[in-house]
Amino acid sequence: MPKNDFVTYEQSGVNIDANDRMVERIMRSLQSTHGPRVINLPNGFAGLLRIDFNEKLFRRNYKQPVLVASTDGVGTKIKVAQMAGKYDCVGIDLVAMSVNDVLVIGAEPLLFLDYLAIHKLVPSEIAEMVEAVAEGCRQSDCALLGGETAEMPDIYPEGEYDMAGFAVGIVDRNRILDGTAVRRGDVVLGLASSGIHSNGFALVRQIIFKQLGLKIHDTIDELGGITVEKALLVPTRLYVRSIVKLLGQYRVKKVVHAMAHITGGGLVGNVPRVVPKDCNVVISKSAWTVPPIFQFLQKHGPVEEDEMFRVFNMGVGFVLVVAPDFADSIEEKLTHYGETVYRLGKITPGTGKVVLKD
Amino acid sequence: MPKNDFVTYEQSGVNIDANDRMVERIMRSLQSTHGPRVINLPNGFAGLLRIDFNEKLFRRNYKQPVLVASTDGVGTKIKVAQMAGKYDCVGIDLVAMSVNDVLVIGAEPLLFLDYLAIHKLVPSEIAEMVEAVAEGCRQSDCALLGGETAEMPDIYPEGEYDMAGFAVGIVDRNRILDGTAVRRGDVVLGLASSGIHSNGFALVRQIIFKQLGLKIHDTIDELGGITVEKALLVPTRLYVRSIVKLLGQYRVKKVVHAMAHITGGGLVGNVPRVVPKDCNVVISKSAWTVPPIFQFLQKHGPVEEDEMFRVFNMGVGFVLVVAPDFADSIEEKLTHYGETVYRLGKITPGTGKVVLKD
Repeated sequence: MPKNDFVTYEQSGVNIDANDRMVERIMRSLQSTHGPRVINLPNGFAGLLRIDFNEKLFRRNYKQPVLVASTDGVGTKIKVAQMAGKYDCVGIDLVAMSVNDVLVIGAEPLLFLDYLAIHKLVPSEIAEMVEAVAEGCRQSDCALLGGETAEMPDIYPEGEYDMAGFAVGIVDRNRILDGTAVRRGDVVLGLASSGIHSNGFALVRQIIFKQLGLKIHDTIDELGGITVEKALLVPTRLYVRSIVKLLGQYRVKKVVHAMAHITGGGLVGNVPRVVPKDCNVVISKSAWTVPPIFQFLQKHGPVEEDEMFRVFNMGVGFVLVVAPDFADSIEEKLTHYGETVYRLGKITPGTGKVVLKD
Repeated sequence: MPKNDFVTYEQSGVNIDANDRMVERIMRSLQSTHGPRVINLPNGFAGLLRIDFNEKLFRRNYKQPVLVASTDGVGTKIKVAQMAGKYDCVGIDLVAMSVNDVLVIGAEPLLFLDYLAIHKLVPSEIAEMVEAVAEGCRQSDCALLGGETAEMPDIYPEGEYDMAGFAVGIVDRNRILDGTAVRRGDVVLGLASSGIHSNGFALVRQIIFKQLGLKIHDTIDELGGITVEKALLVPTRLYVRSIVKLLGQYRVKKVVHAMAHITGGGLVGNVPRVVPKDCNVVISKSAWTVPPIFQFLQKHGPVEEDEMFRVFNMGVGFVLVVAPDFADSIEEKLTHYGETVYRLGKITPGTGKVVLKD
């Protein structure tokens, strides 16, 4: 029987060669994120990262190290990236969604892995996606230890793909921020988001593309003439360096009592997760200006303001609950590190809710 | 304007309530995997696992701890699970794909996270999937620290879903198995697989469903009358307990020189990843009987035998390269732990290849 009568794996829809061509570019991206902690294992089955604390690989010497792990995707922001044919933004989003969560515990992110599944593996696109993930990792001082790329034409329709990210960080046991330190009178600080980040895109897409019928390269006059692409594809802000640096400034005093990453659920859904049940978080809406993109979505939905605050970050991507005596110096430090800081409000007696005041 | 003229997030295709209903069942599954290492953080942004080595949470006291991380999916085995309406098998597969990889380094798996993305979130199905992941974690003595479930109707077609898994283990730096210990004359042992495991399903599905036109509940006479479902949906074998126990028996002597998890690429693709470039791995095909399912696929493809060995595990799911003087006692121990062990062959001078002999 001639050889080409045989069924091969390639004929059944999986392109192994294309995978090989891409691997070299991916390896370069990975290595750009590797510091002295990483042990290189060519062709290894897994990625390796040293946590031996006596060899000065870490800024802190962890006495009771606790691993902190989180996973997330980027939701349907991927659909917008795909319309624009751009793969750089969502790579950073993917890292941000998980490392910002790890940060909330008071941990320093250490390592990241990505899973990428796609209808058809186009090596240059995959390499671009992974390079964006690596860029997110570099900006988070986090090693991209590995990943998986799967071509699955029977699960993902033509043009479709999905990504999942996994981050692990480390924190000393007695520095874990679990919300129990939050007290009435504590000050609530907000850090500006860079835009919509990676939540609420089902609603964004419905309003922008279905209701308003806009195309990805159309300009929006109400937003100063920027394109839909530019308005929507802003990478999620990475708060890692600012927060790790801030926590490093207070190694004895516990002045940061809780933190929250503002994702799906918005301020009202996420801040209560780290606040005791006998406290409220009173936030003054006058503390910051809601960015134009959210105003645009609210108007054209139309979407009720309450719903906007349940779905979107509304301009605040990360929240810190801090001891009142240190609020000024923390605000100053974070501003110095490059954050835009809003004094959102304070902790009062209550029932574990966020109260938005005009 | 009446309230129901407003666009809400739910109308745009995301069902938040269904998500809430499911969370309780998922939490129970997660907690069933939690030992004393895990720190419980209700509503936490991330999962926490202690690695403070002085408190007897670990069997070994790691002197120079190295984290070992791996991620993988289960490929299109998911399509077969979906045809069968069964979500238990692939959950265990998902854990196995990553933890068996972590094991290869000589590491003990510690924690696992899963990402699950689906067209439409059916709470009972998701809960079943996560419970299966938890079962895989329990069988691997690994904590399921968290996960993400995403409903994305615009990316996944009706009925479709995908899963990604992420595992982290730990190993002492001087016990890392990187293949450099492999010597000519070393003995190659193989551990029986439980079936096809989670690789090669694009080819499996083409042969079984497209070429032979079989349905999921059809019986296959050539395989003793078992159903297609039963032949294909066998969970990937978890080698964790046997291998961790084995390595624990040799804490000073380094008798296991390398290991390989036999996934996509088969024996010929995976074993060379852990063998020096000046060695060959000579494997005698008479050392074991290729299970009937592979013979069936090979015959009905038809698929060339070389291709079969490049795509499938052919009955050998995990390989150990061991010091010849200890081969007998290792074989005996692994058999005692419940593994079926084949003495596949040995390491010879060569060029980094697997040589299959009749």
